Amino acid sequence: MRICLAQINSHVGDIIGNQKRIISAIKQAQNEQAEIIVFPELTLSGYGCGDWLLHDYFISACEQALEAIIKAASHLIVVVGLPRSAPPSTDGQPRCYNSAAIIENAKLLGFYDKQKRPNYLLFNEPRHFIAGQQLGNFKVNLKHREINLGISICEDIWHQAEPVAAQVAAGAELLINLGASPYAIGKPNTRQQSFTATAKRFNRPLVYLNAVGGQDDLLFDGHSGVITAQASQSLAGFREEIKTIDIKQIKTADRLNQDDDNKQLYQALTLAVRDYVYKNGFKHVALGLSGGIDSALVATLAADALGANNVTAIMMPSQYSSQHSISDSEQLARNLGIKTHTLSIEKTHQLFAQQLTPLFADYHQGLTDENIQARIRGLMLMAYANNQNCLVLATSNKSESMVGYSTLYGDMVGGFAPIIDVYKAQVYALCNQRNQLNPVIPQNIIDKPPSAELKPDQKDSDSLPDYDVLDAILTAFIEQRKDPLVIAKQLNTPISEIKAIIQKVNRSEYKRRQGAIGPSVSAMKSGTDRRLPITFRPNF
Amino acid sequence: MRICLAQINSHVGDIIGNQKRIISAIKQAQNEQAEIIVFPELTLSGYGCGDWLLHDYFISACEQALEAIIKAASHLIVVVGLPRSAPPSTDGQPRCYNSAAIIENAKLLGFYDKQKRPNYLLFNEPRHFIAGQQLGNFKVNLKHREINLGISICEDIWHQAEPVAAQVAAGAELLINLGASPYAIGKPNTRQQSFTATAKRFNRPLVYLNAVGGQDDLLFDGHSGVITAQASQSLAGFREEIKTIDIKQIKTADRLNQDDDNKQLYQALTLAVRDYVYKNGFKHVALGLSGGIDSALVATLAADALGANNVTAIMMPSQYSSQHSISDSEQLARNLGIKTHTLSIEKTHQLFAQQLTPLFADYHQGLTDENIQARIRGLMLMAYANNQNCLVLATSNKSESMVGYSTLYGDMVGGFAPIIDVYKAQVYALCNQRNQLNPVIPQNIIDKPPSAELKPDQKDSDSLPDYDVLDAILTAFIEQRKDPLVIAKQLNTPISEIKAIIQKVNRSEYKRRQGAIGPSVSAMKSGTDRRLPITFRPNF
Repeated sequence: MRICLAQINSHVGDIIGNQKRIISAIKQAQNEQAEIIVFPELTLSGYGCGDWLLHDYFISACEQALEAIIKAASHLIVVVGLPRSAPPSTDGQPRCYNSAAIIENAKLLGFYDKQKRPNYLLFNEPRHFIAGQQLGNFKVNLKHREINLGISICEDIWHQAEPVAAQVAAGAELLINLGASPYAIGKPNTRQQSFTATAKRFNRPLVYLNAVGGQDDLLFDGHSGVITAQASQSLAGFREEIKTIDIKQIKTADRLNQDDDNKQLYQALTLAVRDYVYKNGFKHVALGLSGGIDSALVATLAADALGANNVTAIMMPSQYSSQHSISDSEQLARNLGIKTHTLSIEKTHQLFAQQLTPLFADYHQGLTDENIQARIRGLMLMAYANNQNCLVLATSNKSESMVGYSTLYGDMVGGFAPIIDVYKAQVYALCNQRNQLNPVIPQNIIDKPPSAELKPDQKDSDSLPDYDVLDAILTAFIEQRKDPLVIAKQLNTPISEIKAIIQKVNRSEYKRRQGAIGPSVSAMKSGTDRRLPITFRPNF
Repeated sequence: MRICLAQINSHVGDIIGNQKRIISAIKQAQNEQAEIIVFPELTLSGYGCGDWLLHDYFISACEQALEAIIKAASHLIVVVGLPRSAPPSTDGQPRCYNSAAIIENAKLLGFYDKQKRPNYLLFNEPRHFIAGQQLGNFKVNLKHREINLGISICEDIWHQAEPVAAQVAAGAELLINLGASPYAIGKPNTRQQSFTATAKRFNRPLVYLNAVGGQDDLLFDGHSGVITAQASQSLAGFREEIKTIDIKQIKTADRLNQDDDNKQLYQALTLAVRDYVYKNGFKHVALGLSGGIDSALVATLAADALGANNVTAIMMPSQYSSQHSISDSEQLARNLGIKTHTLSIEKTHQLFAQQLTPLFADYHQGLTDENIQARIRGLMLMAYANNQNCLVLATSNKSESMVGYSTLYGDMVGGFAPIIDVYKAQVYALCNQRNQLNPVIPQNIIDKPPSAELKPDQKDSDSLPDYDVLDAILTAFIEQRKDPLVIAKQLNTPISEIKAIIQKVNRSEYKRRQGAIGPSVSAMKSGTDRRLPITFRPNF
């Protein structure tokens, strides 16, 4: 049995473009004598349409686009994901299904509608889809035999996999799952383990097609595959691949490429940057290069994602900038081959100070002055981006973002924040990881103590615990939702210190709300997987 | 039968504070010889906790806080809303119910758990709550008789009101509904009509308690009431009220205060500003006063909400500012009695231009230069707010926000955007409405053509259709989700013009995502009721 796995990168909203991608894959499958071709969940609309799924004419457009796909699908079984209209809504219910169209030799056999609609972390499927009710068994004719397919969509096969169990009971011989399963650190491997267990539990071969590509803060990693009782074969991670696999030829159990988590994470972030930039119509990005490790990593990611000649770094030194900040940044830029501009902020800083002094009794102290510097830099970066029609990348990491150690409208400016969900410890690990390939990030950037350089001799450690301590507290509070008392005990840290950090997290929600989006890689990204009010008086 | 309606303004997260508010209302009810006291939905936690409801220790804290309320509730039936824990979760399901505790003479009788969990517009209750399964009938002893109460929570009584129908079938004599029903223009009246129909349908008296107060972009308007077959009595809108009503004494059908929609909307926005500012620990706000109608309205709202001495207006004229912009702003500030500062942006604008010119071939043209001016103003406003520890109010209205006619990090800066969900036509109506009270907004501000004043002789109408045309297109596309072809036909406008506006809406989603939150008053506020991706290639 020859099955084509069409792991394609759909563009959300680009129904006509996605239709072309689908038909092109169908032609490839026909050329490769495949008997079945399978696409990911919601291939035709893309996954992540939001409330466009509540616009009737958007759903109609998907249904119309399916017609040409059906016509193109001669001598083939096609299983392709799309939203399709449901009976008119009442009571504020949504009006479409998350469906798979099953096409046999250029005729529509029918639809399977997703039954399990996740409504946790980044998902809110019941907002947009009503639940399917019908079994997903379809008897289709292959070249030499009839086969009973059990079609399911993503969440259907996780957890208790009830819809799939029912399909097996109804005679399904081959299980097919269309997915849009988001990446998280370590997820590709746990996903394969879970699916291997499922294939063994039901004693049926399982074909699973995962989406690939970035969509706002969602990131799909691909790693589609075929799993039989004894063997498996996977497609690439983090890129498109269309491949025909003969199930009988799979003899060994491949494991996913043995890349460690950091290597996968680096690939994930690269794909996220590339897709956000290109899918939003940009080619070129700009960012501020401070001499610190965060902007160094983002510059390197951008150069790897887009090519060095599509990245411009702006260095904006002040009176507080140390000499190594400039020289380290220049060295990094040379190593990467990216363009740089240098714009001192000293004169504008002085002028703002002079103009604002009459209003303030205590101008030259504190946060106001630090924020002005960061905001002058933000203004200059945005002016460059406006003038050159490029996208600004923000360079905040998760550790500083969660405690609000960043300036709104200052260093937070930008359209996309590639490492917004990456803790500081992981930033170091990614730099070291990338430098193994070739040492582009100067060692001094990795080794020096982190500093915002907004006042004399400033260090991050003046305001924050060491990042290993901070990351441990944040991980326990955010990723694991632990009680502060439990965290204090577990980390052997005074409860007052834990509470001080949690207070910083609570009080900086307003900043994160206005910050740039970026890829969720932790499964607990603020604003995506973790949704909290700004107005919150913790008193309990 | 004497029932105390405790329409209180809970603070989200402030469980101890809410407990005190509840106990204080219980004491008032006891003093007023009430037999029953009813509170709104989720009184104890506040409505709008987001993922705090997924933290076990947050739910535990609510359950613990209930104990003191039970003890305080002697000689009284208390019905109070809170989240309570559910059996441990599987499959990513949430772990609490949205409940009402029913207390009789200082003993907990039991809980009713909300059955219908809305998952549309601003709601996403199934993310946080599992559905209740039990009938909400509770037999309680009043002074002289036993009565069968039918307890429901908000959505339970809307639409088909199935849970309530079952309660009536099971003998409910008095219907009690705990709500957190958000305000929208016209909603108080439609809500009362709907509840009157429900009371008539079931032929039972209905007591409904609605929350009151602002919480981020949510706004609850109160207007709780008692409705019998022939009569009704309502509590105040847009403020707390705790009132004991003897059902037998209600002889006439009051209608809600006969305020028109604009008067209600003005009250709603005032409450939203006040609650956002106070609940976030501020007393004082600052805003930029441009001489235009939007900032004039926001300044007036702020003065009405917080008192004139808690509002500071910063005027930041440039070479393009017309003389009337300054004089009109000064007149408004004098009329309101708010403080002003004037900071010219000319010098800083020149300095930025001079510094950036070497980077750009075409500096002195176009959007880059306009945005720099707006961003200098944003920087100055934020510096003032940082230094004076006040909150910046953003002044964008819905019409300009939806088409992206605003500068990110420029005029969009601020923590709260009071009129972000108010169309331009409504801005005019609100100004006229407010001026009827006393004419604080100079007529010239209302009469002159809108202009951003970022280049010589600029008018909004250079880039946009007239606001009445724009508002009509936006209303059809956003509020009514109409097909562009239908809109073109209906408005007798070329499809190209409709599509050009829709393109502006699609392409400016990234700005709105980074904009300040503000009260949802349209039931279709961007980001609250209407959730869309940034990355979207409309090709269908």
